[in-house]
Amino acid sequence: MSSIYGKLFSVSTWGESHGEAVGAVIDGCPAGLPLSEEDIQQAMDRRRPGQNTLVTPRKEADKVHILSGVFEGKTTGTPICLAVWNENQHSKDYTEMMNWYRPGHADLTYDLKYGFRDYRGGGRASARETLARVAAGAVASKILKLACGTEILSWVESVGTVTSNVDASKVTLEAVEASPVRCPDPEASEKMAKAVAEAKFAKDSIGAVLALDIRKPPVAVGEPVFDKAQAVLGGALLSISAVKGFEIGEGFHAAELHGSENNDVIRFEDGKYRTLTNHAGGILGGITNGETIHCRIAFKPTATIAQEQETAGRDHQNGTLAARGRHDPCVALRAPVIVESMAAIALVNLFLEQRARKLF
Amino acid sequence: MSSIYGKLFSVSTWGESHGEAVGAVIDGCPAGLPLSEEDIQQAMDRRRPGQNTLVTPRKEADKVHILSGVFEGKTTGTPICLAVWNENQHSKDYTEMMNWYRPGHADLTYDLKYGFRDYRGGGRASARETLARVAAGAVASKILKLACGTEILSWVESVGTVTSNVDASKVTLEAVEASPVRCPDPEASEKMAKAVAEAKFAKDSIGAVLALDIRKPPVAVGEPVFDKAQAVLGGALLSISAVKGFEIGEGFHAAELHGSENNDVIRFEDGKYRTLTNHAGGILGGITNGETIHCRIAFKPTATIAQEQETAGRDHQNGTLAARGRHDPCVALRAPVIVESMAAIALVNLFLEQRARKLF
Amino acid sequence: MSSIYGKLFSVSTWGESHGEAVGAVIDGCPAGLPLSEEDIQQAMDRRRPGQNTLVTPRKEADKVHILSGVFEGKTTGTPICLAVWNENQHSKDYTEMMNWYRPGHADLTYDLKYGFRDYRGGGRASARETLARVAAGAVASKILKLACGTEILSWVESVGTVTSNVDASKVTLEAVEASPVRCPDPEASEKMAKAVAEAKFAKDSIGAVLALDIRKPPVAVGEPVFDKAQAVLGGALLSISAVKGFEIGEGFHAAELHGSENNDVIRFEDGKYRTLTNHAGGILGGITNGETIHCRIAFKPTATIAQEQETAGRDHQNGTLAARGRHDPCVALRAPVIVESMAAIALVNLFLEQRARKLF
Amino acid sequence: MSSIYGKLFSVSTWGESHGEAVGAVIDGCPAGLPLSEEDIQQAMDRRRPGQNTLVTPRKEADKVHILSGVFEGKTTGTPICLAVWNENQHSKDYTEMMNWYRPGHADLTYDLKYGFRDYRGGGRASARETLARVAAGAVASKILKLACGTEILSWVESVGTVTSNVDASKVTLEAVEASPVRCPDPEASEKMAKAVAEAKFAKDSIGAVLALDIRKPPVAVGEPVFDKAQAVLGGALLSISAVKGFEIGEGFHAAELHGSENNDVIRFEDGKYRTLTNHAGGILGGITNGETIHCRIAFKPTATIAQEQETAGRDHQNGTLAARGRHDPCVALRAPVIVESMAAIALVNLFLEQRARKLF
Repeated sequence: MSSIYGKLFSVSTWGESHGEAVGAVIDGCPAGLPLSEEDIQQAMDRRRPGQNTLVTPRKEADKVHILSGVFEGKTTGTPICLAVWNENQHSKDYTEMMNWYRPGHADLTYDLKYGFRDYRGGGRASARETLARVAAGAVASKILKLACGTEILSWVESVGTVTSNVDASKVTLEAVEASPVRCPDPEASEKMAKAVAEAKFAKDSIGAVLALDIRKPPVAVGEPVFDKAQAVLGGALLSISAVKGFEIGEGFHAAELHGSENNDVIRFEDGKYRTLTNHAGGILGGITNGETIHCRIAFKPTATIAQEQETAGRDHQNGTLAARGRHDPCVALRAPVIVESMAAIALVNLFLEQRARKLF
Repeated sequence: MSSIYGKLFSVSTWGESHGEAVGAVIDGCPAGLPLSEEDIQQAMDRRRPGQNTLVTPRKEADKVHILSGVFEGKTTGTPICLAVWNENQHSKDYTEMMNWYRPGHADLTYDLKYGFRDYRGGGRASARETLARVAAGAVASKILKLACGTEILSWVESVGTVTSNVDASKVTLEAVEASPVRCPDPEASEKMAKAVAEAKFAKDSIGAVLALDIRKPPVAVGEPVFDKAQAVLGGALLSISAVKGFEIGEGFHAAELHGSENNDVIRFEDGKYRTLTNHAGGILGGITNGETIHCRIAFKPTATIAQEQETAGRDHQNGTLAARGRHDPCVALRAPVIVESMAAIALVNLFLEQRARKLF
Repeated sequence: MSSIYGKLFSVSTWGESHGEAVGAVIDGCPAGLPLSEEDIQQAMDRRRPGQNTLVTPRKEADKVHILSGVFEGKTTGTPICLAVWNENQHSKDYTEMMNWYRPGHADLTYDLKYGFRDYRGGGRASARETLARVAAGAVASKILKLACGTEILSWVESVGTVTSNVDASKVTLEAVEASPVRCPDPEASEKMAKAVAEAKFAKDSIGAVLALDIRKPPVAVGEPVFDKAQAVLGGALLSISAVKGFEIGEGFHAAELHGSENNDVIRFEDGKYRTLTNHAGGILGGITNGETIHCRIAFKPTATIAQEQETAGRDHQNGTLAARGRHDPCVALRAPVIVESMAAIALVNLFLEQRARKLF
Repeated sequence: MSSIYGKLFSVSTWGESHGEAVGAVIDGCPAGLPLSEEDIQQAMDRRRPGQNTLVTPRKEADKVHILSGVFEGKTTGTPICLAVWNENQHSKDYTEMMNWYRPGHADLTYDLKYGFRDYRGGGRASARETLARVAAGAVASKILKLACGTEILSWVESVGTVTSNVDASKVTLEAVEASPVRCPDPEASEKMAKAVAEAKFAKDSIGAVLALDIRKPPVAVGEPVFDKAQAVLGGALLSISAVKGFEIGEGFHAAELHGSENNDVIRFEDGKYRTLTNHAGGILGGITNGETIHCRIAFKPTATIAQEQETAGRDHQNGTLAARGRHDPCVALRAPVIVESMAAIALVNLFLEQRARKLF
């Protein structure tokens, strides 16, 4: 525990990298949502490795199966079990992991916590775990899309020290997916691709920052005081492996500002309240005000690298390790759909909770 | 909802700025913990306003009362109700709030969510809500201190664009409390105090960044995959009003690094595993490795400022508002003990959960 | 833990018999509910001891105070703290409890669990704990009443071996409250009063069964499979001290029937589905069908009795104890409002949860 | 929702009668527990239909698969996904269910709640759902067995009006399984078998009462005040389809007793506290005292019967229905292992929670 997330739209994930399968059970999905395997597969395919030379060359079909909870094309309100079979395990690549702790990875801490671990391919701490998040996230996104018109979009904003420059409100999914590094700024995209290729050539890896826009979010969601929308979103996104930082609106930059600069002027126009600027990132007092929710998420460089590193092992030995296997030089490149998925799962929980109590 | 935080050490907070009282109920505190009102009052006093000219001049005794759960000086294992009576309400200062929405504040979104609000002094969204967090946090801190020797310390690292320079591992509570802005770097402290005074004079406010060190944390706590230690800590800290960003370890800086730079070498020495550096900030794979947990938290400038701002009101009118009342020009100056409290509450939950399943 | 009940309408109770106060915090009450202390006090007064010679002669005003969450006569959507100050403690009556374990009581098990206990007046295990349930239940009842027209009514059906005979659908609150034993069958009421008086005279106590009717319940509430309406109601009612059994509909009698006898014929009439009989007690498949929910709840005789009993003590001594103090000879007589309260709290949670997901 | 049960040992179940599979995900199982598919299969086989002429003749292999969470024969602390593939669906038997609501069944209420339903074989409300409970229960039972020596045993105590007479403390699993109706009293067993056969011949069904003994339970578990051990056990058992009543210890009979009869004398002997009798059923003040926990559970007669019954349908029509398909004339005969499973899951949650806070 806790591989279960969410109070009203609960996602219970399971599975190890080299076990039989990975999957998720969604408990609490509203009945009557049109849902097919194809709806989910589209998201899965965006996460899939092997798409170009900048990501791991592993070939994984990652075909999702709906095992329950959907009947005649619609959700029934009962639990939806989603499963993806593991196919492409190269167990022989991972034998060293049994004895050595990769620096920056969960090997050591899993042993400290559980006494031992499934060391094959990272076991539960493998990036394959995110498959389950994406599958469940596709369902959450569809609910928000149909119920509120919400659109959730994430892209790569910087890689290493290479930054991009775009008008966030104009970024499209097409522009993101057209870039091999999922950066919608073509010039920056080219430089980022070069930085990733260099890291890979050097048997190294590199970090990145993702942007996240939630457009037309449900209004008035977020539960003061502990489940403020930014706290729930931040907690959800920080649970993704390799995430080291989260910002909402101006984020750390807000700490450098004066109130007169950071406050957004409120205006009543065309029958609703708007803000003239959006330094707040769409959330005030922990509750969405209807403006676009804007976040930034920092990913560290992939921990597993092919160059030799000093480390220790489970028999208390000290020595060196050069990780074998096929690893992404920049995990963040495949992460936009994962970020979107966790945001959707977090937000749909707040949305359902807000509906529950709208009574008097 | 949700004013309840935590699965095993649950803190249920309540109270509005100008209601009868604010308080917290702790459900799940282990029995046998020595606890007195004095233990808690020490933390309360660090949060209290009116300590110098840089914080709000409101005088609040903020005396905590233990109403249940402690008998003969020890916790009984039953719920601990902690209450602070509200004394110093100047209702007349706040009448404008009924009709106007302060920019950057929760006034608008509370009305959107609940249909109306207790507008007196910010109601539930007032900074007085944090009193309850501090009271409960003092209990959580004492548990961690007695059970693991854990020490939690937060301080102001930057105010506006003024930054400090300290060796985090050497910072002491005394040094922090000796500074009027709670920055243990004396030179920076002086500049920060000036920046805050200037903001105040300009009827404005200013943001700040806090550092947080958790020394000798419980080892092997954090629950993969959704309750990773950084996700739980981040979610807890992002629930504090005015927090806009959270980092663990290298944080956003990690996104600029290569894996070979960011990974920490693991070494087995003196009977335990250590890392030679601590870029990870004490957490790997969502589980604590025993190194100091290091975080940074960004606070926006206080939303309520005395200068005139454009805004709208509850009857759909547009106009201007100059907030009256006494407000901190920099909320972050009183926030270190709040940050420490939320970190303690988050961590004690993970600590108790880890104990539950250590069986075979 | 767990002194917190409910996922969406959470009730966090606190307080010991001889501490400062007892109370409850409600987190998640919908905003806009008209609510006054008087609304709650009416329920409190039905639970109050000292009403006649058949219940404990202790005089307790049990005046409820709303400390937060209500503004200008309506709930604000923020936590509602309800408190009752303890006034009438006779500490001297309870000193023996420190050393001896009363048979049938929680004294021994609290010591086993927590290492020690607040022995004054039963501490947390005192019947005063139910004050908090009744206070919160009054709020839950009002929500169900206003939103669905639901009426919840409980009464004494049997005391010892004295049973009553009424048409459940015709029982009124007035008839129940007119009886000193809260039994709406006047003839049985008289016999029951005699049985209670005899038990009291014999320094003994006596058990009873309560009936519970929930009329015009919300339809389609109950969450398969673990939160079936009967499971949630049963769990809530079995958490009341002294309850030893729970039945829904035909209950244990259903085990003696054939399917052809126990099934209720469904008929579509006047625009809705009805059942011609109600053996099921208003719930099918864990979901309410709109018929009256009917339950029965068994209360054991009060454990604390004035006659001498063999028992053991905390220093491992064996001996005898004759409890002093003033105790109800039949706890069930004051229990109808407690039963109604827990039923309301359980049901309002299911009602809010059902609302959350009614989307497509 | 809620198909998830339990706070620390969480069981998330999924699957419909005629979908791909049914299963459970266990989140929070302690690491290091020896576990094989065979361990679980033994329990599954006790639940399986087709064992003799008194239960449904459907043949279901019900072979369990462990898809995650076990490595080299031991649990890893990560989620355990258990799945059973559905094989023997006779879809043609169930077409009438689409249009008609079976009396006593969930057909109507699922339509009221969700707007439509998977009508094949009862869908989610099918007895196949209990497969997931039994699979997860086998894991819970093994934890309690290894950690505390706990033995959990359930048997049929009465069928219709036929009752049995045994010394509960002497009942063995062997004796239970030797009876075709799972009643360890050979004489009563024969009469019960006859009663079930008669009901079957009459195209009818019959109810039953199960006994449940939990021997050598963990001591001091149960969380006052809402998660008292009897409340948690009762809630869990009442969530099993067809259960209409629950008793602990003397149960409803306690309501007929005097305190002097019902209280159990406490005695300190051989280094521990015991009670000379066990009217309480092993729980005092909601906390286990170490004595055997004894419960009784009432099952109604199977709702689906082959004889013609009046009912209504989803197009508002009234008429008659004679259910086709193969149904148990007495669901309770296969229920002992289901009852044991839910008791184990409930108890292991309380056991883990008690461990979490044993600190000072």
